[in-house]
Amino acid sequence: LETESISNDFEYVWHIVPVDLGERSYDILIGPGLLLEVAEDLKRLQLAHNYFIITDSNVKELLGTDLLNIFNQNDIQASLLSFPAGEESKNMETVVSLAREMVKLGADRSSAIIALGGGVVGDIAAFLASIYMRGISFIQLPTTLLAQVDSSVGGKTGVDLPEGKNLLGTFAQPKRVYADIATLASLPLRELKNGLAEVIKYGVIRSPELFDLLEKQGNEIINLEPELISHIVAQSCAIKADVVAKDEREGGLRRILNFGHTIGHAVEAAAGYQIAHGEAVAMGMVAASLLSVKKGLLSSHEADRIKKVIKGLGLPVAIPSTFSVKELVDLTKHDKKSIGGKVNFVLCESIGKTVIRDDVTDDELSEVIEECMSND
Amino acid sequence: LETESISNDFEYVWHIVPVDLGERSYDILIGPGLLLEVAEDLKRLQLAHNYFIITDSNVKELLGTDLLNIFNQNDIQASLLSFPAGEESKNMETVVSLAREMVKLGADRSSAIIALGGGVVGDIAAFLASIYMRGISFIQLPTTLLAQVDSSVGGKTGVDLPEGKNLLGTFAQPKRVYADIATLASLPLRELKNGLAEVIKYGVIRSPELFDLLEKQGNEIINLEPELISHIVAQSCAIKADVVAKDEREGGLRRILNFGHTIGHAVEAAAGYQIAHGEAVAMGMVAASLLSVKKGLLSSHEADRIKKVIKGLGLPVAIPSTFSVKELVDLTKHDKKSIGGKVNFVLCESIGKTVIRDDVTDDELSEVIEECMSND
Repeated sequence: LETESISNDFEYVWHIVPVDLGERSYDILIGPGLLLEVAEDLKRLQLAHNYFIITDSNVKELLGTDLLNIFNQNDIQASLLSFPAGEESKNMETVVSLAREMVKLGADRSSAIIALGGGVVGDIAAFLASIYMRGISFIQLPTTLLAQVDSSVGGKTGVDLPEGKNLLGTFAQPKRVYADIATLASLPLRELKNGLAEVIKYGVIRSPELFDLLEKQGNEIINLEPELISHIVAQSCAIKADVVAKDEREGGLRRILNFGHTIGHAVEAAAGYQIAHGEAVAMGMVAASLLSVKKGLLSSHEADRIKKVIKGLGLPVAIPSTFSVKELVDLTKHDKKSIGGKVNFVLCESIGKTVIRDDVTDDELSEVIEECMSND
Repeated sequence: LETESISNDFEYVWHIVPVDLGERSYDILIGPGLLLEVAEDLKRLQLAHNYFIITDSNVKELLGTDLLNIFNQNDIQASLLSFPAGEESKNMETVVSLAREMVKLGADRSSAIIALGGGVVGDIAAFLASIYMRGISFIQLPTTLLAQVDSSVGGKTGVDLPEGKNLLGTFAQPKRVYADIATLASLPLRELKNGLAEVIKYGVIRSPELFDLLEKQGNEIINLEPELISHIVAQSCAIKADVVAKDEREGGLRRILNFGHTIGHAVEAAAGYQIAHGEAVAMGMVAASLLSVKKGLLSSHEADRIKKVIKGLGLPVAIPSTFSVKELVDLTKHDKKSIGGKVNFVLCESIGKTVIRDDVTDDELSEVIEECMSND
């Protein structure tokens, strides 16, 4: 997929990925150093009268205060609001408490929210924007690789209930996304891998070229070589944007984004969510590749390439053998995306090409999970 | 405005008002006895796998249990959920608690919510539907005149914060509205008048014919003559639907629906919301008519007709003289719909025709409020 580039004062090229959703269309800007330019860009765009930067306690220290200063230096009215970092904050109490703070600070229908942080910040801040006075504008500034390649495209917002994740939320599109890849340098390696698992997924489901890059330049990627990372983030966003544009509200095509996630979610649930999402998805992708081989769709050679790329980028390829195979099979069948009891598996015909199948038997699933448990 | 009619097993004609919002279009069905037909109609439409009837503690006793029984008799899976009646319940805690109950009862993306009750029930239940698993279908069964002619058209949902009313919410459209005018008989007269104030508003802003009916058949209306009330509700819905269809998200035309509400809201606020909404709007409409006369837009004769209709339907035409004129002027200027400090007043050129003006001075406003205080 082609992405546009724009020149700027930095030594690197920025990418622009347009997300085509009719009157809700927006652009994703990608590149190192973008955070420094956001205030000026928003001033030019005149999106809102004042801005409310929402972030978590960690990102506030690392980036939030600096960003607020840049807004102030540009004479843009802005406030900085934060909540305790972590998935535990992703609930309606946080949303209500941020909303009340915004009312007290004078936020009205012409204000905009800026979500500065990872997936949790994005989900909460975008959800709040979509319900504050029945909806105000918001801008995403994703600071983790996962948020940059995944949650900043697609428009899903939401919070958890004690009964489950993301049970309350909306579909809402940002006015613009700025993915500053310089922010990735301060991420723990484990966070980075969470994002890489999704990047691998995009290659497998839609782009042999992206997959080739991951296969050949693994070291440069782990070392966060700026031009390469920008390119990879742009390609990933472009793939997701293309899929989402064709299926905004999850009717059909969008399901292919679940490659590796059906079994991955089961692994996460079996681990009581004490395993990183990216690691679970990595294991799920290995399992899905093996299922594809078992169904006669994919060659063993291709499945092996997928496994090697996952391993090469430091992600796990084996499902821990301490888990019960039967429990994993049951959890897979209770995935919330199952329809009428039938589980839809995203399988792979070749790298870059997927197919949805609902005819995977419990036996086939058990065999594949067992096989994954003996991987190394 | 023309509305369609359908035949049925009852002696009265039902009205259908189509609300034209592209792919979010829906029909409002209006008539006596409709509640008895909802289950069968939904069975035919196959909108959802199961239904969650949401109501308040009062309506639950009056209608909720009966409605659940009809669903059961029709072999439709349904559950009845309720919360304590009253505006105090219109908050996010109620929404979260209903959502958790729904999860436990097995509500999923193919479930639908049925809002059975007045405005508070409608606002809460529709808001919940719009965020439950990022949005499920909902159906409105408004049981007060105000909800039938006002909140069931327009798509506004929401809850209050301690800082103000309706500060969190969404725009969301129902799949269908059933306005059973037989439910109005169990309303306290004060509730009925709340709705009548809005009906008068529709006549003044858009329909000389509706206004004539209110002028000539006041007694029959207060006595809830079924065919007449059905006709009036249908006309009111058709007018609001027409306005909303032309301006779904409140850019321009929709502002005319605020006739009488700008000063009305100030009266409500000055009274600490201890005055009925309809009574405040009634006073606001009298004031807006006088303002229209003062601006040379409306004849005194027409303003007098408006005042007489309001009084004839048992609504107040005088602003209590215990209020401070200055406070009311200040409150009017702080109405949340003011833009850039300028207050937009919906004024009247003749019955059925409005104009928006932002050039009302504080002095003019004071004089009109004082004049209203000496009304009887």
